[in-house]
Amino acid sequence: MTLERDFHMLGGTGESSYAANSTLQKKIASGAMFLVEEAVELLVSAIPSSKTSLVLADLGCATGANTFVMLSAVMEVISTTCTKLGQPIPEIQLLLNDLPGNDFNALLGPVLSSYKQKINKSMSESGIPFYTAAAPGSFYERLFLKRSVHFIYSSACLHWLSQVPLGLNSTTEGPINKGSFWISKKSPPNVSKMYLEQFQRDFSSFLKFRHEELHSEGHMVLIIPGRLSADPSTEESAVWISWYEEGLQDLVSEGIVKASDVDSFNILYIFHQWRR
Amino acid sequence: MTLERDFHMLGGTGESSYAANSTLQKKIASGAMFLVEEAVELLVSAIPSSKTSLVLADLGCATGANTFVMLSAVMEVISTTCTKLGQPIPEIQLLLNDLPGNDFNALLGPVLSSYKQKINKSMSESGIPFYTAAAPGSFYERLFLKRSVHFIYSSACLHWLSQVPLGLNSTTEGPINKGSFWISKKSPPNVSKMYLEQFQRDFSSFLKFRHEELHSEGHMVLIIPGRLSADPSTEESAVWISWYEEGLQDLVSEGIVKASDVDSFNILYIFHQWRR
Repeated sequence: MTLERDFHMLGGTGESSYAANSTLQKKIASGAMFLVEEAVELLVSAIPSSKTSLVLADLGCATGANTFVMLSAVMEVISTTCTKLGQPIPEIQLLLNDLPGNDFNALLGPVLSSYKQKINKSMSESGIPFYTAAAPGSFYERLFLKRSVHFIYSSACLHWLSQVPLGLNSTTEGPINKGSFWISKKSPPNVSKMYLEQFQRDFSSFLKFRHEELHSEGHMVLIIPGRLSADPSTEESAVWISWYEEGLQDLVSEGIVKASDVDSFNILYIFHQWRR
Repeated sequence: MTLERDFHMLGGTGESSYAANSTLQKKIASGAMFLVEEAVELLVSAIPSSKTSLVLADLGCATGANTFVMLSAVMEVISTTCTKLGQPIPEIQLLLNDLPGNDFNALLGPVLSSYKQKINKSMSESGIPFYTAAAPGSFYERLFLKRSVHFIYSSACLHWLSQVPLGLNSTTEGPINKGSFWISKKSPPNVSKMYLEQFQRDFSSFLKFRHEELHSEGHMVLIIPGRLSADPSTEESAVWISWYEEGLQDLVSEGIVKASDVDSFNILYIFHQWRR
């Protein structure tokens, strides 16, 4: 398996697609939209009024179902702020990023087209001209030109790591997280540490590259799902993983899946503790 | 049928895909590559050496098989010219455009990935960092931000019109190009005129919008297939169309296709006369 090619949300717009099953992600994004509004207001107030265009990027957009929630909010703020400041309204370049295996056909075809139709119908939309482009690649690498992006946004994506934590499968004793595929109550204590270290490496790369790409007056809003409990193996953050673990163990008992495959399988996913 | 959604080259990379059947288009592009080289040399010489990035656009890229012929040539010239002038080598943003129904999954997935692997292997490539993004839409409309593109390229695309020529099917007497679906020897004389007028409207839009998008130091290379003979209905420019016409007439005789559907069908395609 090549991660960049094979790892992606389920494409299309059908019943089992990510587009039709990302209400939770939409709720997360909607709840944090006030941060987007604050950031864009600061951005528009800081750039010279002679600036005729702004570049926005959504990292990990999948098929875009929730991208356009953000875009509508951003357009509204740009329109209001420019009117208040007596500035001309800039054009927008919207850069949509996800891994190369993402369903860009759905994103750039039906999803974008239905959003444009909605905008044209709705009289309350601000009517700011926007041009869309899809940028394939891992956000743990460079994606855009230096200092070219004014607003970077990523929602419910940065809990995905760039790879299975280093060390989980590379010991001479074989896989160390046997029988689990995340940080479970059965996992040895260093599993949690390996996940954290992988996140630290990945997030450092992310910040380094975004720093290179972000315009000097630019802003960034990152929405990362977390957990309340101090223990990562509690049901709160891992309940659905324990269901899959049990299911996979059943398949092993029935001889359909090899035990060694399950032993070396780990999900590349982390949930941090956060405090209210 | 919605043109923007339904009209596209055959996707994927399989046996019958456009990617595997565009050798003629590659030959056309390769033969004109000296024009690209001249334009990019002028561009690089004209921009200030403090400029750290250049934006290139390929309009009508399909699944990209021939885009990367152009990109390699452009990179080579940028590298050579910058070295000659003692300028730092800029980063490149490559914008790939086609209609929303295009197979962007093939373009941004396997095609781009195999080009990147080829570059990494080849020691002769210049190693200029480039970032790719796919911009869906008709090139008879705006696609990019104002004054944002330094080099616009389109090869073997501008013979496609934005729609079936106005007037061909809108007369009270019904379709005027019955029994043909292009400018054939059987077509009434005004058919050829309607095709030309549609091209003039489309090409005017194209130039107007590219003028808005092109950077003040920018260059544009357009490669448009043509014909030598003065008569558009000669075999030279329409031989394959006459085969399809005969085939469709057979399907009508066999009752598989309705004669009225063939009567109102016209291909949205024009071949201009050019002189050596």
